[in-house]
Amino acid sequence: MDIPYLSGGERCEVPQGFLDALRERFGARCSSAQAVRDHHGRDESPYPPMPPDAVVYAETTEEVAWVARLCNEHRVPLIPYGAGSSIEGHLLAIRGGISLDLSGMNRVIAVNAEDLTVTVQAGVTRKQLNEEIRDTGLFFPIDPGADASLGGMAATRASGTNAVRYGTMRENVMNLKVVTADGRIIQTANRARKSSAGYDLTRIFVGSEGTLGIITEVTVRLYPQPEAISAAICNFPSLDSAVNSVIEIIQMGIPVARVEFLDSAAVRATNAYSKLSLRESPLLLFEFHGSPAAVKEQAVAVQDITREHGGMDFDWAERPEDRSRLWTARHNAYFAGLQLRPGSRASTTDVCVPISRLAECVSATAHELDQASFPYMIVGHVGDGNFHVLMLLDPDSREQWEESERLNRRLAQRAIDMDGTCTGEHGIGLHKKEFMLAEHGQDALDLMHALKHAFDPHNILNPGKMLP
Amino acid sequence: MDIPYLSGGERCEVPQGFLDALRERFGARCSSAQAVRDHHGRDESPYPPMPPDAVVYAETTEEVAWVARLCNEHRVPLIPYGAGSSIEGHLLAIRGGISLDLSGMNRVIAVNAEDLTVTVQAGVTRKQLNEEIRDTGLFFPIDPGADASLGGMAATRASGTNAVRYGTMRENVMNLKVVTADGRIIQTANRARKSSAGYDLTRIFVGSEGTLGIITEVTVRLYPQPEAISAAICNFPSLDSAVNSVIEIIQMGIPVARVEFLDSAAVRATNAYSKLSLRESPLLLFEFHGSPAAVKEQAVAVQDITREHGGMDFDWAERPEDRSRLWTARHNAYFAGLQLRPGSRASTTDVCVPISRLAECVSATAHELDQASFPYMIVGHVGDGNFHVLMLLDPDSREQWEESERLNRRLAQRAIDMDGTCTGEHGIGLHKKEFMLAEHGQDALDLMHALKHAFDPHNILNPGKMLP
Repeated sequence: MDIPYLSGGERCEVPQGFLDALRERFGARCSSAQAVRDHHGRDESPYPPMPPDAVVYAETTEEVAWVARLCNEHRVPLIPYGAGSSIEGHLLAIRGGISLDLSGMNRVIAVNAEDLTVTVQAGVTRKQLNEEIRDTGLFFPIDPGADASLGGMAATRASGTNAVRYGTMRENVMNLKVVTADGRIIQTANRARKSSAGYDLTRIFVGSEGTLGIITEVTVRLYPQPEAISAAICNFPSLDSAVNSVIEIIQMGIPVARVEFLDSAAVRATNAYSKLSLRESPLLLFEFHGSPAAVKEQAVAVQDITREHGGMDFDWAERPEDRSRLWTARHNAYFAGLQLRPGSRASTTDVCVPISRLAECVSATAHELDQASFPYMIVGHVGDGNFHVLMLLDPDSREQWEESERLNRRLAQRAIDMDGTCTGEHGIGLHKKEFMLAEHGQDALDLMHALKHAFDPHNILNPGKMLP
Repeated sequence: MDIPYLSGGERCEVPQGFLDALRERFGARCSSAQAVRDHHGRDESPYPPMPPDAVVYAETTEEVAWVARLCNEHRVPLIPYGAGSSIEGHLLAIRGGISLDLSGMNRVIAVNAEDLTVTVQAGVTRKQLNEEIRDTGLFFPIDPGADASLGGMAATRASGTNAVRYGTMRENVMNLKVVTADGRIIQTANRARKSSAGYDLTRIFVGSEGTLGIITEVTVRLYPQPEAISAAICNFPSLDSAVNSVIEIIQMGIPVARVEFLDSAAVRATNAYSKLSLRESPLLLFEFHGSPAAVKEQAVAVQDITREHGGMDFDWAERPEDRSRLWTARHNAYFAGLQLRPGSRASTTDVCVPISRLAECVSATAHELDQASFPYMIVGHVGDGNFHVLMLLDPDSREQWEESERLNRRLAQRAIDMDGTCTGEHGIGLHKKEFMLAEHGQDALDLMHALKHAFDPHNILNPGKMLP
């Protein structure tokens, strides 16, 4: 398999004394067992594992700082590891070094319900967080599908189904505790809702994919649980009619909480996997949040728009258990898709374009994929102009891999040409480094390199990722 | 007058050949006339002018790049100038050099109504922008009071009355065209609503106060003009009861578009200045946006809360002209305040705290100010936890200046101690540099210095500002 960057750069030589020092400090929480290393050298990307030399399980920020100082001194790569749910190769130890597992840092530190904020350790996952704050009447809306850790979500600037209403990690992270490359501990901000005091360190680390510092605590905004929630499904005669409905809904400023697109293949897969009986045509899955009156008002407005675009009757899911079943099915679309071709290897894309170009971008992409030699499905957080393609490849076919990479490249370039981005929410990792130049231009990339060098002069933090 | 930092650093020697080169390139658009220099060496801060050596009026991004290259080569300070409405000394040429006036770059470049975005040159002001897009049915909500330029608003991470609902420049800038210190031209992003592709260059420049690059174009989000708008005034028996109402409104998640606090002195000043007859007690000024039903629902909920806190009857301003008169009066509160003591010099503060600490912070501040030897008033964008004090000083009294600085210092520290910030929206400039260490700590400041050095190695961009 021809994977760009995977073999790029030298694998670092870890000195024996270095591992001894780690073992002495961490005991059983430092492991170089093959199974542990393999587990930490892979993620949900299509790449084969590239194991680190050792895995350290950190329990405190001070421990993280200790490891960073040691790695910095010995120039050993250091890769933070949360839930392992990256799909772009962020976690692969392409230059060896240490995988720093933060999943044990899973404590909710402070719920400030009166300020609608919560501070958690980086290893807390979004489902755990919502469980722990359930009694406060508040919730954390960012929902990338996977039960990712908050640290990982911050590091990849994650978003997901609720972003159209509540924003992404960019808008919802208020403050981070970060360990720098040389092992210092900083707070990027405070808990004020806004500030003009200095450079926006928070936003520098949000989306930095572990390359500028190691996030150990995250303070995020919470929102009151909506008084009323309703969900609905609407089928469409064509992909275009569905997407054009969304464009009009957004342009009207209707504050839908979620609007998800599934193409026919995704619906078919979801029906099979989640034992549903949705009509197998392109569909939109809506959720409305607000007061009972507001929810009704939004739903009526959306229904009017979809009807004009040929949308078939709304199918309501009012009961929490029905809603939950629908959204679970949506979240399982990835696994459902894999079943479209049992035994296949999935390659996933993720682009985002201005909403006015969305129909054109999705259509052109579907048209190309219809000629491909493998099955695919398209799902999308279309309210943001963001969609994904899941391509289901024969794992033994080099030709299919190359074909999928070619299509992925064409899609990324199409999105960039439409004044969009090669990744709306998955991040760059390894798989998208080749698009950074086309998206940003050399001069902007030079600034990114300057920033990286300023924050991590010895290039120990997740080296070889993001920047070409 | 003892002004910290004003005399800090050497004034740069501008070589004669340098000015000649500028004059040759820009002709009459390069001026070293005293009046022009004086005008560009001041802002709305209480500081005396510190004029630059010359002023250049740029008309294109390429001209800005040309000037930057020249300044970088000759190590001459370069200070971008928009509308001149800073109140923290951002524009003072404390080390001499060139003031680069961008007010002539005032063209709306592209209205993408279907994407709810607009791209403008940096010198376009917010009022001009809203005039020019009026026919689209969209509006740009960020409203810092002053008719600031969009470039300046981005550079100071401005916000204002609408931020509680629509966010600040941090959330609303989508893309910037920026000239780097060495005269290269970059785009920080694109027009996708979200992206995970690389470091967040946009947010690095938003709030950088002209110290990392010169913003020449700004793409911001627009919003559909609300179907219905209503405004109301509610008086309270005490400062605490007003602020506690706001806290509860925010905690309930009611999406008020604006909620402004005025203390009794501010109401008195506003009555006198704007010929109104508001009851002279602490008051809240609300605005609600949405469908007619949603606006009504919000207003009822807010009215219930204020009533519980002793708020007196809502006074409605339904007609656009009444609303406009109220908001104009609010925006003129600063000038109205000056009339509380004719001939006085104003010193303004700006802190922001978590909403749960707001009542405590405002009360403690008012209590201290009640002992001061000069009049004051408090106004605030209280929905964000943000408020301002206007202190009206005898311009000839060194004692009053020092007293006001002491109070300002205590207020900034109080906000920081409450996990807030020394500036919610005015920025650091010169006046707040001394609080950067207390707010961020040395290690975070070191990262900011590293970023500054990486982006502007010769320290030509607005030197001596923001970073201590």
